[in-house]
Amino acid sequence: MELPDRLGVRDIGALYASGDASPVEIVRHCLDRIERIDPVINSYLTVTPDTALAQAREAEAEIRTDGPRGPLHGVPYAAKDLLDIKGLPTTVGSPLFADIVAEQDAAAIEALESAGAILLGKTGLHELAYGITSANPHYGPVRNPWDPDRIPGGSSGGSAAALAAGLCAFSLGSDTGGSIRIPAALCGVTGLKPTFGRISRRGAFPLGHSLDTIGPFGLTVEDVALAYRDLCAWDSADPASVKDSAVLPSFGAEPSLQGLAIGVPSDFFFDGLHSDVAAATDSALAILADLGAEIRETPMPDVRLANSLHRLILLAEASSVHRRRVQRQRDAIGEDVRALLEQGLLVSATDYLDAQRARRRFCQGMAVAMEDIDALVLPGIPIPTARIGQLEIPVAGGLENVRLATTRNIRSLNLTGFPVLSVPCGFFGDGMPIGLQIVGPTLGEESILAIGHAYQSATSWHLRAPQPATPEDPTDTP
Amino acid sequence: MELPDRLGVRDIGALYASGDASPVEIVRHCLDRIERIDPVINSYLTVTPDTALAQAREAEAEIRTDGPRGPLHGVPYAAKDLLDIKGLPTTVGSPLFADIVAEQDAAAIEALESAGAILLGKTGLHELAYGITSANPHYGPVRNPWDPDRIPGGSSGGSAAALAAGLCAFSLGSDTGGSIRIPAALCGVTGLKPTFGRISRRGAFPLGHSLDTIGPFGLTVEDVALAYRDLCAWDSADPASVKDSAVLPSFGAEPSLQGLAIGVPSDFFFDGLHSDVAAATDSALAILADLGAEIRETPMPDVRLANSLHRLILLAEASSVHRRRVQRQRDAIGEDVRALLEQGLLVSATDYLDAQRARRRFCQGMAVAMEDIDALVLPGIPIPTARIGQLEIPVAGGLENVRLATTRNIRSLNLTGFPVLSVPCGFFGDGMPIGLQIVGPTLGEESILAIGHAYQSATSWHLRAPQPATPEDPTDTP
Repeated sequence: MELPDRLGVRDIGALYASGDASPVEIVRHCLDRIERIDPVINSYLTVTPDTALAQAREAEAEIRTDGPRGPLHGVPYAAKDLLDIKGLPTTVGSPLFADIVAEQDAAAIEALESAGAILLGKTGLHELAYGITSANPHYGPVRNPWDPDRIPGGSSGGSAAALAAGLCAFSLGSDTGGSIRIPAALCGVTGLKPTFGRISRRGAFPLGHSLDTIGPFGLTVEDVALAYRDLCAWDSADPASVKDSAVLPSFGAEPSLQGLAIGVPSDFFFDGLHSDVAAATDSALAILADLGAEIRETPMPDVRLANSLHRLILLAEASSVHRRRVQRQRDAIGEDVRALLEQGLLVSATDYLDAQRARRRFCQGMAVAMEDIDALVLPGIPIPTARIGQLEIPVAGGLENVRLATTRNIRSLNLTGFPVLSVPCGFFGDGMPIGLQIVGPTLGEESILAIGHAYQSATSWHLRAPQPATPEDPTDTP
Repeated sequence: MELPDRLGVRDIGALYASGDASPVEIVRHCLDRIERIDPVINSYLTVTPDTALAQAREAEAEIRTDGPRGPLHGVPYAAKDLLDIKGLPTTVGSPLFADIVAEQDAAAIEALESAGAILLGKTGLHELAYGITSANPHYGPVRNPWDPDRIPGGSSGGSAAALAAGLCAFSLGSDTGGSIRIPAALCGVTGLKPTFGRISRRGAFPLGHSLDTIGPFGLTVEDVALAYRDLCAWDSADPASVKDSAVLPSFGAEPSLQGLAIGVPSDFFFDGLHSDVAAATDSALAILADLGAEIRETPMPDVRLANSLHRLILLAEASSVHRRRVQRQRDAIGEDVRALLEQGLLVSATDYLDAQRARRRFCQGMAVAMEDIDALVLPGIPIPTARIGQLEIPVAGGLENVRLATTRNIRSLNLTGFPVLSVPCGFFGDGMPIGLQIVGPTLGEESILAIGHAYQSATSWHLRAPQPATPEDPTDTP
């Protein structure tokens, strides 16, 4: 049969169940698309067609004999190239690591392998995962499938772009200061930054030890939830790992939010929004209210301060990770990342520890804010999607720094460890996607997935796909 | 009846049970002794006779009507003056805090209050709890009851000295780099540094956030265990607090260590021991073997490096706690502590974070070392007890720095969070006590208490009391 351009986890499961497609066909379909489309999008750093096809054949045989192990069995995915995969280098977007071959799979990769998912390859990212554009000076920029002149967001830009372009069925990223939520929003896909400690970081190259999380991208909340469930497992090798089993909501056909209270901050997060973002967020809140949720104005602790704390903590932690490299191999690091790492070397331990202490107070304030509600709903990125290389963007008569504005509503949440789901919630006038953040309390993934799923049942933003964007795509050339 | 000079928790419980003494008598007995003896020892910074007697009367009535709440009911204790007690200042050994009255009891104080224990007062400590001598420039040195010219050890010197001198039945200290184990060893009493996170630090003035622990001193392991049990409770206010209930060993009359494996390091901890310490440790190991334990040589990770890591981490954390004071009120801080705090301001965040990362590797090495054994047994302080003010001490033909040598076998263990019990195990030729460390794995208090109890059942070092040391003690003046 003729396969659609984009296929998610559930879509593929249905094809396997009906016998309308097999793992080998699906993997070939993805590999063909990668070959045709990715020369422009540049979402993959490494593609592994041989092992993918071999795994597909195995999955095909096993599913035929024993049925599928679960919803991810035979489903092809892509992983951000900071996750170790045995036998491949983990570049972390830097040539400094390009010759070091991993000896073991990362915990997240192991988990997906047990679930029967099939790895297609490793995706591009902002250098050292420390930036929001995925404009990598060594491997070229990842491009946004909705407009190849724009950034896909970062640092997990390759994983979101590959998914949006139909080059995998789901994908893995990491989020230290927004690196899942930003590309999810900019590429119009769904992304989950889980609770800090939920998914093991063993075998994931670190950026900020007290902030790093691993999480999935999917075309729907349900796809994201299925990947998330299989990724969760306590792991003694990750000092942050939590012992708590992941519970998914029931993904019923007519979901209701009756009885749920959704908080909306009275300030900061709604300041300086582009009018399209403001309108999309208001409309999303109206839909959530229609679905039965009670919307409550919720006061927040000092988010502006929290953004500064996040910045300082990450500067110090990232410089600790990369210290020798920035001291001895500085010319091998791109200008923007090098500047951050050099700043980080100047942070004093007392400033760092004071920031961690102030962080605890912010977290206490956020925990209080969450006490009487099931989730917070916040606009994601307040500004339009920047062009590759663009540092400032005009918004509401002024110029905004792209980096600062993009992370403004996002990075403070990494301090709390709270889980955050990003779902598509509309489009800018220029056709680029807009994202909405749904924030839960610690280990509160179940509620935010339920809310996100109800929202997607009532809307179709997540179903829109980018038009074939380039002449390299033969469907575009008669 | 004529009461003995020193009474522990079990001793007092027996007197209450037999009706041979009442809480009011016991508290008066302690208060009398404090009045007579403490002018020389200087173990108390604050004595609270009125509230102690009022509590004693209440306890007396309640015990008469309902029986005792538990083994601590009506038992008088002293608390290191970094624990908040409502209505009193918490000096932390510094005049900078002398006028700030606490509004709430510390968690440890609350726990003992519920158990019915009676607070006699607050004990002296090294300034800001950051030193090992308890020679406080503002409140005078705490003196060792075994020889008032010698240090009692620190920083919890007052709590150990008060107990050794019979000025309370048990006491509370804190241990960040040895501050319970050092004074326990030097004053010839038993002390427990519990697992990091076991006892809530709410209301305890911090020194090193990632290292601080609160723990009890007692005349016997059993007394320590009884206090420890009542002090343990999960507390959301302490971010390190662990959810795990404390289990005590059975304190049988003829304890055996059959079936237990005790590790003894093959290097470092036995290097440069004073011959009396070496002999006492060897003899203790022989007794543990006689009791049925299998003694196994156990290789250790790099303890010398760990000591440096501990030093750097504590410098940074302490300077973060006291930064404004050392920057703005430096003349109000004694010379030795000021020098440390000023050094701490110069530590970079990357050095601090690198040290925390190397600490995790040390901890993994220690966890591996503990895998096949129930406890490690180590000599405590390798050198004789210094005189007050003495900075160097002759050992084996050379001069040792008192501070470095005293903490050499002790401070690395704070990095691991492991519980450590210090028990008296003999005496130097000059009559001063020697201590032995029994180290358990994380949350392994039950084993080390069982080993310590078995050891004390087979020995009598812990029963020896200092001779009345001063002419102020009327038993010394005919």
